[in-house]
Amino acid sequence: MTSTSQSQSSNDLLVLEAAAQELLFTEARTANTFSDEPVSDEQLRAITELAKWPPTMANTNPLRILFVRTPAGKDRLGPLMSEGNRAKTLSAPAIAVLAVDTDFHDKIPELFPFRPEMRENFVADAANRERLATFNGTLQAGYFILAVRAAGLAAGPMLGFDGPGIDKEFFSDRPWKTILVVNIGKPGPDPWFDRLPRLAHEDYVEYV
Amino acid sequence: MTSTSQSQSSNDLLVLEAAAQELLFTEARTANTFSDEPVSDEQLRAITELAKWPPTMANTNPLRILFVRTPAGKDRLGPLMSEGNRAKTLSAPAIAVLAVDTDFHDKIPELFPFRPEMRENFVADAANRERLATFNGTLQAGYFILAVRAAGLAAGPMLGFDGPGIDKEFFSDRPWKTILVVNIGKPGPDPWFDRLPRLAHEDYVEYV
Repeated sequence: MTSTSQSQSSNDLLVLEAAAQELLFTEARTANTFSDEPVSDEQLRAITELAKWPPTMANTNPLRILFVRTPAGKDRLGPLMSEGNRAKTLSAPAIAVLAVDTDFHDKIPELFPFRPEMRENFVADAANRERLATFNGTLQAGYFILAVRAAGLAAGPMLGFDGPGIDKEFFSDRPWKTILVVNIGKPGPDPWFDRLPRLAHEDYVEYV
Repeated sequence: MTSTSQSQSSNDLLVLEAAAQELLFTEARTANTFSDEPVSDEQLRAITELAKWPPTMANTNPLRILFVRTPAGKDRLGPLMSEGNRAKTLSAPAIAVLAVDTDFHDKIPELFPFRPEMRENFVADAANRERLATFNGTLQAGYFILAVRAAGLAAGPMLGFDGPGIDKEFFSDRPWKTILVVNIGKPGPDPWFDRLPRLAHEDYVEYV
């Protein structure tokens, strides 16, 4: 069973007003084409300043962001995108490479100052650190996608890329691991496919 | 270096209005106590109807949600929370157990109807399926946390729980894997710690 109905019927149970619901959640779409309208560095910074506040485990904030917007930067990123995503990515005015810092524990004394010794818990187990960095950084990627929409821009998240290749090209001196690439810009001509369905409520939500 | 300044200075570069920025991002906080004010099933449903729209890879939507709000449900969940989180979780009017369906590929013909054969790509490799389910479900967990805030409620995400124990207690007949537990309710008395710092912009954002 599927449901394609919008959520307008539940508006009045929410505090967030209708225009904001539409901008971030119900009407925003993943764009497949982008206009030539540039995205400024000030807009990109405003997006990160909004996205940085929602929660992560023990305030670890492992997400790291590389914004690619120059021709030289795109020349380096393009070959590392999968062929099906390459042209679309290169046409976006800005691209965010979202990575996680697998040495995030080194920032714990700064970010969790009332328990700096918590850093020690993470020193020994690098695999657990990578798992937690990926989990918390992915939560932050969700916040980031909605923050891009808060700037009136379309966000196009993509998983089709050579992750180790991107890490080597851009982060060779740091233990950062790419998790997601997000195209950013104003939609261009014919930007959307038809809206895809979502699961029926009773097929993914239970109550006890 | 740290920055504790709020993002108000960049407001005018965003389309989302100030009240919504504060409700979802800049002023919302993770509550440590909850009031007795109940959270209705209709509110919980409205949260899921809002959170279901932002994007996942190939529209796979692997997130599954169990809302625990009865005394009987809390009696089952309580022993599976870590000791430091137990009392706080049991005091919340509603708790969301967020899980991912590691057999999400079985829904592809329903959710991605123009390429139902994509399901076959995921049959052979269960480890890759679990990785992708966790990644995409965690993005959805980020959307969900902001959707809880959109209902005017505090969301308290927690990683301190016995995941396999929760899966066995609640999802024994299904390949669902718990990824996060979120306390939901109105803040109670003395609900916040001091706001923790965030990284300075130049320490986690780069531009090329």
